[in-house]
Amino acid sequence: MATGSGDLGPVYPVSGVRLAVVKAGVRYPDRDDLVVLEVAEGSTAAAVFTRNAFCAAPVTVARRHLAAAVPRYLLINTGNANAGTGAAGETDALTCCAALADLAGVAPQAVLPFSTGVIGEPLPTAPILAALPRTLLGLSAEGWAAAARGIMTTDTRPKVVSRRLTWQGQDITLTGMAKGAGMIKPNMATMLAFVATDAALAPDHLQTQVNAAVARSFNRITVDGDTSTNDACVVLATGRSGLTVAPVAADLWAAFGAVLQDLMQGLATAIIRDAEGATKFITVRVEGGATPDESLAVAYAIAESPLVKTALFASDPNWGRILAAIGRAGVVDLDVGTIDLYLGETLLARGGTRASGYTESQGQGEMAREDILIRVCLGRGQVTETVWTSDLSLDYVRINADYRS
Amino acid sequence: MATGSGDLGPVYPVSGVRLAVVKAGVRYPDRDDLVVLEVAEGSTAAAVFTRNAFCAAPVTVARRHLAAAVPRYLLINTGNANAGTGAAGETDALTCCAALADLAGVAPQAVLPFSTGVIGEPLPTAPILAALPRTLLGLSAEGWAAAARGIMTTDTRPKVVSRRLTWQGQDITLTGMAKGAGMIKPNMATMLAFVATDAALAPDHLQTQVNAAVARSFNRITVDGDTSTNDACVVLATGRSGLTVAPVAADLWAAFGAVLQDLMQGLATAIIRDAEGATKFITVRVEGGATPDESLAVAYAIAESPLVKTALFASDPNWGRILAAIGRAGVVDLDVGTIDLYLGETLLARGGTRASGYTESQGQGEMAREDILIRVCLGRGQVTETVWTSDLSLDYVRINADYRS
Repeated sequence: MATGSGDLGPVYPVSGVRLAVVKAGVRYPDRDDLVVLEVAEGSTAAAVFTRNAFCAAPVTVARRHLAAAVPRYLLINTGNANAGTGAAGETDALTCCAALADLAGVAPQAVLPFSTGVIGEPLPTAPILAALPRTLLGLSAEGWAAAARGIMTTDTRPKVVSRRLTWQGQDITLTGMAKGAGMIKPNMATMLAFVATDAALAPDHLQTQVNAAVARSFNRITVDGDTSTNDACVVLATGRSGLTVAPVAADLWAAFGAVLQDLMQGLATAIIRDAEGATKFITVRVEGGATPDESLAVAYAIAESPLVKTALFASDPNWGRILAAIGRAGVVDLDVGTIDLYLGETLLARGGTRASGYTESQGQGEMAREDILIRVCLGRGQVTETVWTSDLSLDYVRINADYRS
Repeated sequence: MATGSGDLGPVYPVSGVRLAVVKAGVRYPDRDDLVVLEVAEGSTAAAVFTRNAFCAAPVTVARRHLAAAVPRYLLINTGNANAGTGAAGETDALTCCAALADLAGVAPQAVLPFSTGVIGEPLPTAPILAALPRTLLGLSAEGWAAAARGIMTTDTRPKVVSRRLTWQGQDITLTGMAKGAGMIKPNMATMLAFVATDAALAPDHLQTQVNAAVARSFNRITVDGDTSTNDACVVLATGRSGLTVAPVAADLWAAFGAVLQDLMQGLATAIIRDAEGATKFITVRVEGGATPDESLAVAYAIAESPLVKTALFASDPNWGRILAAIGRAGVVDLDVGTIDLYLGETLLARGGTRASGYTESQGQGEMAREDILIRVCLGRGQVTETVWTSDLSLDYVRINADYRS
């Protein structure tokens, strides 16, 4: 199940990046489960990783390698998250990196490992090692779409988004892929995202751009409030376009930031549209907050309330549940008398109580849509924050009660 | 659906307390939906109310009345929560209190109103007012069991618990009833609880006892992380046993506190056993915490994780999801290398990774039980905290997607 269209537009190759995918048999036979992304020498990289204290072995290794060298290869497997696997898990991740490095003739630290799938099982390294030679043979600049399929777990759709920025007659291309459908929550969920651009950015400039774009995209989505142990977002800049993006050229800096954020929002919202069991795509926009923290607290209290999410699944305009979620969000000195609540364009509650003139059939009309906007006006200040989420459906429970069987 | 036995033992009347229930037709015809509890003159009272900023009109009125007078009557309706109803809701609650006070010959402030049911709809006062005279005629000391049925909403079982404390040859009786099945979360959920004792306690002593007992019972349960707008727990002390409980008599003070906590835990765990869609009863015990706050943060992260709860529903010993929940609980400087995880008596993970010798079939054996203990040893200090919860089942979604239809 998924909402909206899965068509995310045309996919452009990025000069200096090649990808390949194979059926290695990590967990299941006969499915694409191993992806290699190669980036040309001279590129730069930036990344954001999960904040879960139980971060997986590949996350630990990827962080360490990224600090030691410029990456040349990303090695991504599905079927097994190599998480909760302790020292043996790190050894397994390093073994895979070393094998790929050896085949490609680069330093082991130039390989970043990523794993997604079941937590707590040892990573089967043998099928990965056996598959590496033929994976490298398949590398292609056109490999994005196939790779995006290869990193899927419970996803029902591949997620790959391209953007082009034309600057003084020259093109910058950005293309990214992501996976994730459950355990999605700010601070990087079970989500993996890999983005490349042919712009040139110094590593610290790229990190600045990535932090800003991630904050407004991948860190603004939630399916179930669970943060995974493996989340990572890596952005690579090959420089092959010949255009350099740096703060000193403020206009291009801002334009690039806007396009990067737009691309990441495209991937992030595609994840929500494909969330486990999702039948609705919900935007929660909280306006008039005094601070970003309180605005986000209200947005997440709504977006993660099982009672709100089941009402959304039922297309039931049960605005009382939304008010109750706002009320328990922990906002200090919240005056419910200044709060307005909208569903789409329909005013449900004004000053904390049912709006005069509101009718249940208006609310039902809004709730019947597949894309729903919940808009809260706190009346406390000028801050607006937006979060995207899905509903809580019978299929969400079915999928997560079945996942390991 | 509910877990374990619904038999909570014998029910004893409390001298000085009478109850009645009628079919007033607040929302549905032909179901008990209006309860009056009468307490004798000279009693004392203490209460704890929801911390939701959107507290319902009856909560506002009950707080105010309790501050102004000693209660003589509690007036409880189901079918409508009178929440999100603004000034009109307060007027409606006051109208009902005044009518009951008039019939009974007491001050309006001696009546405390309580409502539970749908949020955001005006309280239908006419059927309540019409039903009051015949309700008063039905008051009986034996009315606890019928009243416990009368306050149910999506509950499938009445919840009434009695305890007796014999002290130097004299008996103190405590009897209480509660309702609640969803929107259950610390700080008083959609839960109503009414407890009476024939011990004598000064109001401030009673409040001290109630705060301590509630903290370890009703404030340690969670179904869905949602805190309702209407939660309240009221404890009445009639003094008719002739025994006075006060800190100066430390042994009786402590004994009474233990029995009151035991009674409230009996009601709180009965709520969890009857939680919406529950097929499992789960105790989450976090040991070795450095502080109560961090221990509770870990316990709630586990108890409220949709992924853990769906795994519990599936009887799947998916300990990776439990570790992931611990890892995102926000404990500062958490060292995953000191964490042990047990299901019942079975060690699943030691030092943050799968325990040597653990087999999946052991885990499945523990998960197959209806009552499950998840035990986490943090290895950081001496604090233990316990939280009770239920699983996330298909029926939870069905019930909450259907509630208003």
